[in-house]
Amino acid sequence: MNHEPRDSDFEARVRGSFARQEAMKTLGARLTRVAAGEVEIALPFRADLTQQHGYLHAGVVAAVVDTACGYAALSLTEPGAEVLSVEFKLNLLAPAVGDSLAARARVLRAGRNVTVCAGDVYALHAGSEKMVATMLATLMTVRT
Amino acid sequence: MNHEPRDSDFEARVRGSFARQEAMKTLGARLTRVAAGEVEIALPFRADLTQQHGYLHAGVVAAVVDTACGYAALSLTEPGAEVLSVEFKLNLLAPAVGDSLAARARVLRAGRNVTVCAGDVYALHAGSEKMVATMLATLMTVRT
Amino acid sequence: MNHEPRDSDFEARVRGSFARQEAMKTLGARLTRVAAGEVEIALPFRADLTQQHGYLHAGVVAAVVDTACGYAALSLTEPGAEVLSVEFKLNLLAPAVGDSLAARARVLRAGRNVTVCAGDVYALHAGSEKMVATMLATLMTVRT
Amino acid sequence: MNHEPRDSDFEARVRGSFARQEAMKTLGARLTRVAAGEVEIALPFRADLTQQHGYLHAGVVAAVVDTACGYAALSLTEPGAEVLSVEFKLNLLAPAVGDSLAARARVLRAGRNVTVCAGDVYALHAGSEKMVATMLATLMTVRT
Repeated sequence: MNHEPRDSDFEARVRGSFARQEAMKTLGARLTRVAAGEVEIALPFRADLTQQHGYLHAGVVAAVVDTACGYAALSLTEPGAEVLSVEFKLNLLAPAVGDSLAARARVLRAGRNVTVCAGDVYALHAGSEKMVATMLATLMTVRT
Repeated sequence: MNHEPRDSDFEARVRGSFARQEAMKTLGARLTRVAAGEVEIALPFRADLTQQHGYLHAGVVAAVVDTACGYAALSLTEPGAEVLSVEFKLNLLAPAVGDSLAARARVLRAGRNVTVCAGDVYALHAGSEKMVATMLATLMTVRT
Repeated sequence: MNHEPRDSDFEARVRGSFARQEAMKTLGARLTRVAAGEVEIALPFRADLTQQHGYLHAGVVAAVVDTACGYAALSLTEPGAEVLSVEFKLNLLAPAVGDSLAARARVLRAGRNVTVCAGDVYALHAGSEKMVATMLATLMTVRT
Repeated sequence: MNHEPRDSDFEARVRGSFARQEAMKTLGARLTRVAAGEVEIALPFRADLTQQHGYLHAGVVAAVVDTACGYAALSLTEPGAEVLSVEFKLNLLAPAVGDSLAARARVLRAGRNVTVCAGDVYALHAGSEKMVATMLATLMTVRT
């Protein structure tokens, strides 16, 4: 889907907001791609973010793909608007193990107040990638 | 709902598995209640787990309530069984701010292979509590 | 949760809108309770609404509880506003069989533009009732 | 994704089961494509299936795409197995209006007991099509 941004400076706005997310720093996530309606976040594997079987915790997976969905939505708003997650659903398809994760989100519907995004999470390992989770998310635009 | 545990030692099994979740240690979460089909996890507020507005990140909220749902499910399995999250949906109802969060999960349906749980998240602040999120989760029992 | 209606005539507005839902007539659903932020819909069992095992089809279950969620949301809007479903998640807990279904929805969060509702579906049979499904739904208020 | 069927007769099994779904007959839905892990269902528009604005009811949309997800899952099981919906989430992206709907589902993960499917719904009108809804669904395989 092609999306027309309402703010030509959307990338700076997304990158600035991401830099203020303390949780992303704590998890070690990086913003690896910002386009109009599409965002990718990378998360290197870390043993201190795992659940009891040694896979990355589902909440950590949710954190990066929810954030990617949020910034995909934010990339299409006008300057000054903010975006909040209303809800998301995450299906876990395979263990989140490997060298790193890539969470890729895209806007499915950009409304004035409500945006819907989809995001897929891939585990990258030794040069190959495998889809390990998929999210559908609903976000709300807030204007102050 | 009253649930009959299949393993009289379920609490030790849940506590042992929780102790192996490195992500829970990293987030500072604690297991505050374990009953048959019901689990509570507490998470003290920490500025390094916030999103861009200073609220606890939705992924952090998801991590604690998904974990609570997982252990509510595990509390009802037979010894030796494991539980994996298949999917969850989280609705965010209010900003996750305050002194701490309490995530309270309960089993709605305990099947042989598939368990469904609900979990609510409360923000605790100065002695009062407010519901800030609610989850429906589906879990799969794995036998090795 | 207690909700304060913004429109003292909310019940008439809800009943009028329900009466314009052709799908509800086709399914044989009836609006059995309208309160501020709470709605119940009943659906008598009908063999022509079943799936391959003779249970009421999950889509039929979704239709009645989504409608109950929508009207719970509409009961709290101001006059003239409309409500649209943005998304819902339905967990099916037990076969939807019996004499009839009762779908009971309540508002969890009533925002200016976004409302979140929960709805449970009970199968009624020979005087007893059993929860067979549960929904979390997000709705959008539309003003024209 | 390419899926290897475990039953060379999967199409007959899917078509036979669909024919036993009374709800699909009542709604006027037809099975328009059956492949290994992929199913399409068509639903001609009917005014008696609409909600209060004249669009097809979200529950009707859910019914056809949940059914498509179920049969995509069933197409990959061994003979004799049955599939039940555990849960689904549906995001409504645009009004479901037009000449007909096409619900297209595909398997994302085919496990022994748990299958995950995605389904998109398109409104067809005057030769063009538009995505109006998207579903993520979890299904359970039952063996008797």
